[in-house]
Amino acid sequence: MKASFYTSLLLCGSLVSLNTYATQHSNTQWVDTFIGTGGDGHLFPGAVVPFGMVQLSPDTDNPMRGVSPQPEIYKRCAGYHYDDHTIVGFSHTHFSGTGHSDLGDLLIMPMTGEIKTTPGSAENPEAGYRSRFSHDKEWSEPGYYGVELQDYNITAQVTASQRVGMHKYTFNDADAGHVLIDLTAAIYNFENKVIWSDIRLIDDHTLVAYRATNGWANNRQMYFAIEFSKPISEYNFINEDDKRYRCMDCLGKEKHSTIENKAVKIAAGKAVKFVASFDGLKDEPLYIKVGLSAVSRSNALKNLKTELPHWDFDKTRADAKAQWATYLDKVDVEGTKSQKRQFYTALYHALQAPNIYQDVNGQYRGVDGEIHEGKGFEHYTLFSLWDTYRALHPLLTIIDPDRVSSMVQSMLVHYQQSYENMLPIWSFHGHETWTMIGYHAVSVIADAYLKGIRDFDIDLAVEATINTANNPVYDAIPQYKKFGYVPMDVLPESVSITLEYAYDDFAIAQMFNAMGKKQLAKEYYARAMNYKNVFDKQTGYMRGKDSKGNWNPDFNPEAAKYMGPFTEGNSNQYSFYVPHDVAGLIDLMGGDDKFEGRLDALFDTHLSADMIKEHEDIAGLIGNYAHGNEPSHHIAYLYNYAGKPWRTQERIRQIMDTLSSDKPDGLAGNDDVGQMSAWYIFSAMGFYPVAPGDLSYAIGAPQVEKVTLKLAQGKSFTTFAKDISEENLYIQSVTLNGKPLTRNYLMHAEIINGGELRYQMGDKPNKTWGTAHSARPPALSKYKG
Amino acid sequence: MKASFYTSLLLCGSLVSLNTYATQHSNTQWVDTFIGTGGDGHLFPGAVVPFGMVQLSPDTDNPMRGVSPQPEIYKRCAGYHYDDHTIVGFSHTHFSGTGHSDLGDLLIMPMTGEIKTTPGSAENPEAGYRSRFSHDKEWSEPGYYGVELQDYNITAQVTASQRVGMHKYTFNDADAGHVLIDLTAAIYNFENKVIWSDIRLIDDHTLVAYRATNGWANNRQMYFAIEFSKPISEYNFINEDDKRYRCMDCLGKEKHSTIENKAVKIAAGKAVKFVASFDGLKDEPLYIKVGLSAVSRSNALKNLKTELPHWDFDKTRADAKAQWATYLDKVDVEGTKSQKRQFYTALYHALQAPNIYQDVNGQYRGVDGEIHEGKGFEHYTLFSLWDTYRALHPLLTIIDPDRVSSMVQSMLVHYQQSYENMLPIWSFHGHETWTMIGYHAVSVIADAYLKGIRDFDIDLAVEATINTANNPVYDAIPQYKKFGYVPMDVLPESVSITLEYAYDDFAIAQMFNAMGKKQLAKEYYARAMNYKNVFDKQTGYMRGKDSKGNWNPDFNPEAAKYMGPFTEGNSNQYSFYVPHDVAGLIDLMGGDDKFEGRLDALFDTHLSADMIKEHEDIAGLIGNYAHGNEPSHHIAYLYNYAGKPWRTQERIRQIMDTLSSDKPDGLAGNDDVGQMSAWYIFSAMGFYPVAPGDLSYAIGAPQVEKVTLKLAQGKSFTTFAKDISEENLYIQSVTLNGKPLTRNYLMHAEIINGGELRYQMGDKPNKTWGTAHSARPPALSKYKG
Repeated sequence: MKASFYTSLLLCGSLVSLNTYATQHSNTQWVDTFIGTGGDGHLFPGAVVPFGMVQLSPDTDNPMRGVSPQPEIYKRCAGYHYDDHTIVGFSHTHFSGTGHSDLGDLLIMPMTGEIKTTPGSAENPEAGYRSRFSHDKEWSEPGYYGVELQDYNITAQVTASQRVGMHKYTFNDADAGHVLIDLTAAIYNFENKVIWSDIRLIDDHTLVAYRATNGWANNRQMYFAIEFSKPISEYNFINEDDKRYRCMDCLGKEKHSTIENKAVKIAAGKAVKFVASFDGLKDEPLYIKVGLSAVSRSNALKNLKTELPHWDFDKTRADAKAQWATYLDKVDVEGTKSQKRQFYTALYHALQAPNIYQDVNGQYRGVDGEIHEGKGFEHYTLFSLWDTYRALHPLLTIIDPDRVSSMVQSMLVHYQQSYENMLPIWSFHGHETWTMIGYHAVSVIADAYLKGIRDFDIDLAVEATINTANNPVYDAIPQYKKFGYVPMDVLPESVSITLEYAYDDFAIAQMFNAMGKKQLAKEYYARAMNYKNVFDKQTGYMRGKDSKGNWNPDFNPEAAKYMGPFTEGNSNQYSFYVPHDVAGLIDLMGGDDKFEGRLDALFDTHLSADMIKEHEDIAGLIGNYAHGNEPSHHIAYLYNYAGKPWRTQERIRQIMDTLSSDKPDGLAGNDDVGQMSAWYIFSAMGFYPVAPGDLSYAIGAPQVEKVTLKLAQGKSFTTFAKDISEENLYIQSVTLNGKPLTRNYLMHAEIINGGELRYQMGDKPNKTWGTAHSARPPALSKYKG
Repeated sequence: MKASFYTSLLLCGSLVSLNTYATQHSNTQWVDTFIGTGGDGHLFPGAVVPFGMVQLSPDTDNPMRGVSPQPEIYKRCAGYHYDDHTIVGFSHTHFSGTGHSDLGDLLIMPMTGEIKTTPGSAENPEAGYRSRFSHDKEWSEPGYYGVELQDYNITAQVTASQRVGMHKYTFNDADAGHVLIDLTAAIYNFENKVIWSDIRLIDDHTLVAYRATNGWANNRQMYFAIEFSKPISEYNFINEDDKRYRCMDCLGKEKHSTIENKAVKIAAGKAVKFVASFDGLKDEPLYIKVGLSAVSRSNALKNLKTELPHWDFDKTRADAKAQWATYLDKVDVEGTKSQKRQFYTALYHALQAPNIYQDVNGQYRGVDGEIHEGKGFEHYTLFSLWDTYRALHPLLTIIDPDRVSSMVQSMLVHYQQSYENMLPIWSFHGHETWTMIGYHAVSVIADAYLKGIRDFDIDLAVEATINTANNPVYDAIPQYKKFGYVPMDVLPESVSITLEYAYDDFAIAQMFNAMGKKQLAKEYYARAMNYKNVFDKQTGYMRGKDSKGNWNPDFNPEAAKYMGPFTEGNSNQYSFYVPHDVAGLIDLMGGDDKFEGRLDALFDTHLSADMIKEHEDIAGLIGNYAHGNEPSHHIAYLYNYAGKPWRTQERIRQIMDTLSSDKPDGLAGNDDVGQMSAWYIFSAMGFYPVAPGDLSYAIGAPQVEKVTLKLAQGKSFTTFAKDISEENLYIQSVTLNGKPLTRNYLMHAEIINGGELRYQMGDKPNKTWGTAHSARPPALSKYKG
């Protein structure tokens, strides 16, 4: 024990020094990959490169075969939860911050001593292959994660390239050890999740594997190539399936097929595992490389051999970190250490997805299940659009516009390949999940187009947009077009859907307007006004309405009933969802002061415990404002539109102070594939894209002293928050490139052309700055011409 | 009822007249596709073109979901059994004559009245969608099958092209009807056979579907495109899976995913069905086309659109028949009607497989699970090699040598794609089943090469042959090489395996010898003598031997114990398995007379009921000679090698008279993918390839008056059996091209160069013809130089 402790200390020391070296040179030092791994952040701490196909990360717990009782599943959407004390292994795919989950492909776990092939439980880790671990002996940085596996005294480290994960296992006090590959392990792992799997040894140190799972995506297929740095000394194929393949011969006898014969080195079925044993581990660590592909085993091998032809773990780690540095060093932040940790970690989390979903030879699996080749663009997957159209995609238009074109083109080929002729709704890994509402892909496309990001098939974008927004089979578009709203007797979540369609229609109108397609623009501007059709003037709230025009009799603005008229929210929140025509909404609600009162009521109300319980996936409450979920994200900025920008300034600071920290539980709710992180980044700089597609950003209140964005063509845009402090949360005045800026919003071009935005902060609100009607962000009526 | 009866009579009449017309023009008239659909023939009566990828045929019964008790499964290896009285539907893939089974892909059943979605039972067909039928109202010809579905008064007819099946349903007394597509139906259908399936409506008359099954082949993937001639008026997706996909949302609520939403027109899961309803069926029949692909849905659509762009059922049927005529008219047979029916039906069954397994764009799925493109050859599947190397593949070298090259190349790419570096053993649909023993692909390759059929990659053939015959992971090749036999303590079936390896090694030696690779030839000629190592001189029998050299103490030559030292047989039978060195075997057994006695003992013994029971998959007994299984197929010809050709002549006639007829139960056992049929064809002509690879055919006794084979380049080869009759079963003399032939064997070149083989038949044996040592087929010693 002493010897091993000493070894691990040494090793720990070398890790730290490597980290120290790196920290001197890059903003990667500020990333703490553990932020958001606690609470309901649903983030993972493992190794990934920007937009990488591989997310190689430790899984601490999940429902697994033979474990009873099964652990809580929602908590572990990212595989890892900071509360946990055991690690079951390292798997290669993870969602970043989602509220539902899947993935966790190809779990690998090293061990010493007796071979264990079942996971054991968190309470009784000895019963299985899992190991205890401690956050004291856990290290990470962008592209790298390391941990001491206490039960085995193994130092486990992982890093990754785009399509390949690399493991390094140092067996600190054993010469012999084992590596388990458990194809039954998965995230959101329910009975029957594994449809089929196989694993095959192709030489003494290489395997190929396949798994199809039925989870959030149905029949999702993934292929793997696995290479060990040492020859396997002994191996075991394990098939736990009671109903595994048998040669059902003519006379009804059961004999095991030769596919389980050791001579034919494959195991196939629904519960397949593989154990490789190794000798000589004292002399050098064991390395493993795992190539992924959604197309084929041969592509997985190609990905592996092409991206990581060597066994140099440190180089792979350094390369991964360098990729992160390229991004993170595009932004210079001055602020407190906590702010810098939050900011850079948010940026790190904003650059996880949509991620590459294409092999080195250009092939990818489309939403039609077919193999395609991406020509002239990189193919991306994971469009959590209901979340990310709000701020994440707008953020990418600023910090990585080239990639935005490929993401748009990826959505357009999705449309082409979709049997329903639809742009993605919530898609990943070649599958449309139809999760959430709206058709927000059009917002991302329109926003990109309007910002001059146009390296995609424009004609196809027009076609896809029109066919999506008029799709006869998706949700209730025909009724929406007929009634001007989705009747609540036709579909649940009808009010939310109506409001989000109306916003999307605005984005479409803006794009068509910019294209000079005036007639089409007019049609969609008109549709954008449909929000008015679900506004009940009598109550002053957005409210369910049936196809006969009757308002929902069972109406309570606080009710967030599952399958009611609102989506993960209630009328309180959704009554503010008119991002594209806040001026119009203010009129409906009775003018600036009444609107301010309504906003205050939202933030200041005391929600009953019963009502809170009803809220699904809604966390981070301030009153009934739910920072943990997307429908609230724009709301704090709405005071601006009523000429009360200092109220926005107060609310932003309130949210920052109470709902964000640099701790593992520092996120108020799911990061939702970077949307929460993008909110943080924008809000910390002092502005936010309330209505992507109108090219404006509402000015809130900066939270950090200074941010410099290094933009394309050597330009940069810097925000200064002069005299910002705990007390000085109010904007006194603003200058842009030295000239006073009196409006309470910025335009996209003003950022992207480079320049300086200087905020003068003070401890009292300036109730004259940005208050005039002319100082407020444009209303829809402006665009309607 | 009367009206419908009249209609069906009319229709029946038109079918008959069409048949009559055709019969005047082609030998297809002699094919009776019902021969072998009874008894244990395991043949199907449905529609197929020569070597077609689609085998569209009625299924009469099979274990199915919700049917209790389940029907006997072995009897229904081909889906259809002549004993049955109900049809459950028409599926698109079938094995021809196998003793184990799989397939039965995409079952379609038309119906009227109430929609039924479960099959019901044979005893109670009303309980489900199945229908009664009668052999009186059932018609078929090559490429076509028709039947009256009594319960619905629907006339169902099917035909096919290479990759597309076509259905024609005439609703005789209903204007409205339904078509069920049941993705849970399959042949050899056990619980959990369906791994995953989906079906998707892509327009008002087209569907695409997918199914992966775990049967004889594990995770076999098949894609379908289904097109109706009329728009579907109403449809229903059915998902019977208890554990079907649910949106397992965060709070553990179960809600059905929108993938089961009618708006998104797909059902996916493990128990999926689809019902399409149609109107206006009185006016015209409903046609359905189904394209198959092992690669993708889009390829299935491509196959459909390319091969059958029209809706002309009669043309498709005529085209299919014309393809058969091309083959069947290559052979002219004179004999009794029964003989002609048997001969042409045997030829029809000999041309079913190996079958095309490649899409119109050249793509196919290899044994590595990857998508490949066949370049310079057509890709074939279904290599039932343990059966077919004996006579079926040799037959193809005579009647379709061009196709043989493609079949060999298909086996060579299988080798290339095989993770085990093995030529196929028993493979189909991109899967190696490892069923049966030996490595008989080498026999097929060597035989083709030796016969000058060489339009394949010769270097690859050499490599594949060596690597297969020395494979370190297959069965017991290393031990075979070490000990000169497979020790019975290493592997079951050790004696059969040793004997078959030794024959295969002979075939390899022959090929290398012809290639001038003398050293290699020497090595394999030596291996070919290994049969002697399992011959126990004391008992005079082939006998199990362990790795210490001890003979099996539990020895009974009649014992055909499962997993004993013999494969589907016993020592009685396998003691004659030295086809490549019968002269050497005769020496071992004590000379010509003793050998004759041993052969007689095999044919004349009375096997006890217990011993017969032990025989698995062994039918068609004459004593202990089992015509219904392959290890016996060459045995009747062995009298020739002992200088007693008249005894062979007697035995062939005996087998023909007692074990072959033109009735549904006319086959003595499984046709085994054409092997039994090929035995019939050769034996009817009067010769048989006892040892493919030695280029000789033992002369038996012709059974039909005259056969003309139309060969390549305008050549033809004709056999005349002068004065043949019930009594005149003995050969008196033989001339080849007018010159006396005194040897009791023919050489391949003598056939293929064209000519006339005249047998003079008589009622008494000529005990001088073909008896001299010089008149007997060559012994292995000859080849060894």
